[in-house]
Amino acid sequence: MTFQLVVVGSVALDSVEAPAGRHDDVLGGSASFFATAASYFTKPSLVAIVGADFPEAHVQFLRARGVDLAGLERVDGKTFRWAGRYSSDLGSRTTLDTQLNVFAGFKPKLPESYRDAELVFLGNIEPTLQLDVLDQVRRPRLVAMDTMNFWIDGRLEALRRVLARVDLLVINDEEARQLAGKHNLPQAARAIRALGPKTVIVKRGDSGALLFHEGGVFAAPAYPLEEVIDPTGAGDTFAGGFMGYLAQQGDLGAATVKRAMIHGSVMASFSVEAFSLDRLRALTSDDISARYRAFCDLTHFEDLRIA
Amino acid sequence: MTFQLVVVGSVALDSVEAPAGRHDDVLGGSASFFATAASYFTKPSLVAIVGADFPEAHVQFLRARGVDLAGLERVDGKTFRWAGRYSSDLGSRTTLDTQLNVFAGFKPKLPESYRDAELVFLGNIEPTLQLDVLDQVRRPRLVAMDTMNFWIDGRLEALRRVLARVDLLVINDEEARQLAGKHNLPQAARAIRALGPKTVIVKRGDSGALLFHEGGVFAAPAYPLEEVIDPTGAGDTFAGGFMGYLAQQGDLGAATVKRAMIHGSVMASFSVEAFSLDRLRALTSDDISARYRAFCDLTHFEDLRIA
Repeated sequence: MTFQLVVVGSVALDSVEAPAGRHDDVLGGSASFFATAASYFTKPSLVAIVGADFPEAHVQFLRARGVDLAGLERVDGKTFRWAGRYSSDLGSRTTLDTQLNVFAGFKPKLPESYRDAELVFLGNIEPTLQLDVLDQVRRPRLVAMDTMNFWIDGRLEALRRVLARVDLLVINDEEARQLAGKHNLPQAARAIRALGPKTVIVKRGDSGALLFHEGGVFAAPAYPLEEVIDPTGAGDTFAGGFMGYLAQQGDLGAATVKRAMIHGSVMASFSVEAFSLDRLRALTSDDISARYRAFCDLTHFEDLRIA
Repeated sequence: MTFQLVVVGSVALDSVEAPAGRHDDVLGGSASFFATAASYFTKPSLVAIVGADFPEAHVQFLRARGVDLAGLERVDGKTFRWAGRYSSDLGSRTTLDTQLNVFAGFKPKLPESYRDAELVFLGNIEPTLQLDVLDQVRRPRLVAMDTMNFWIDGRLEALRRVLARVDLLVINDEEARQLAGKHNLPQAARAIRALGPKTVIVKRGDSGALLFHEGGVFAAPAYPLEEVIDPTGAGDTFAGGFMGYLAQQGDLGAATVKRAMIHGSVMASFSVEAFSLDRLRALTSDDISARYRAFCDLTHFEDLRIA
């Protein structure tokens, strides 16, 4: 049995400057990266909004990847746009421009066919919208969410209400520290788990990701890549691979969750190898299997302990 | 069969300020941390220099741990002293004072009983002294070294001569980047391997350590500790656990080297839990086994691949 997976988030047109070049108005947004990554494991159901200017080619791409677009709303106006520039070592990013456009009026509406989904991912959107989504789903087995510094700063009360209702928070390290008010990551995860989510995944960029849950802690490495082109969307891609794998397996046991961490890391490692979703567009199942094996080899050691 | 392990480095009196407190004139230095960590696996042979003021209790401690002190030179004058202060999040460190004292006149002299050692670790000392040590050993199976930004800046020519003669460089991430002139760590490791050492271990603090060798890359995690007291010496402790395990096993195969990475990480995870060598003093073999199992659990996942 597999699980249905719903993702709510942004579909955007990104303009990205990085040492390897500059790309304008390319497909971006948390839901685009998430759904594309997840599409290699399941047929994710997407909820997002775009404007009249959104290129039909992007819609066709997502549809061809098996993404259910019944929840993609198309309205008059311009699509959400984001522009950013990476530092020469890709270690930091400056937002140059954010135009919410039609995203400013986004009210997520879940089609009836989405409401019995077992898995729900609340992408990084305004917390009261995340609550609206939770009111529309019936009895999900697992609700995961992402958030960002902007909402921690400006919408903490609403954010706490969302946290109280979710099972899993996927968050980057700096934002985990900010939300918890603690620098030490295990302490920060413990504080966040006390706010609601029984499981916290802390994304640490090229240091991998840490899973904190009742079973303890699990560390998924990042793959040491010789060439990183564009880190945009890596976190959403991780989440898409992670949740997509859970949907495919139809299981939420600890062993499956750990393998999902590796699958999320596998997809994120591809995502950063090209601008936008370009590397994710072209993957084969052989590519994914080979990278998964590389991750196994990366941390595997023969344990000679005498029990 | 086991291997003999020689370590050459500093024995110092450290004064450390950290959020958890301040400790003055405590036992420190690269060779002290290295040898103490290694002593849980083998009887390391130490080469270092101390002054007349060096407390006899420290000598007795090292001897009680099984460290061969035939190469510990004791001369008139004051022992090497270092003082440093950590930032509130332990993320950065400021050196407040460095007094070389007797260390300024250090000329490593290996006792005859050391010269056939199979394993040699050149701690972070002036590169021409590292070369002097290499001229005194006969046919080591593996020579490893550490270095630091100070020598990369000021003694690059001599440092390159050492690099050309060693098998393994253990170095932290920022220094690897500086030495290679490349920010990307896999690229930096590749550039460093072209200078001589076939194997490079990049230490990344709480992001673990990466092993780059002809067999590819291996990632050892850092253990996510809720309480870190004093990171001083963690890198030398890692190296001591790593080399000590190789000495105990008497083997340099890839599988053993990977397990050595984990044992180094285990010892480093203890080291940071107290000031100076205080946590390393009190370990039992049960402590080490339990932490090793925790490291196994930290990265282990059941791989369901169909071969």
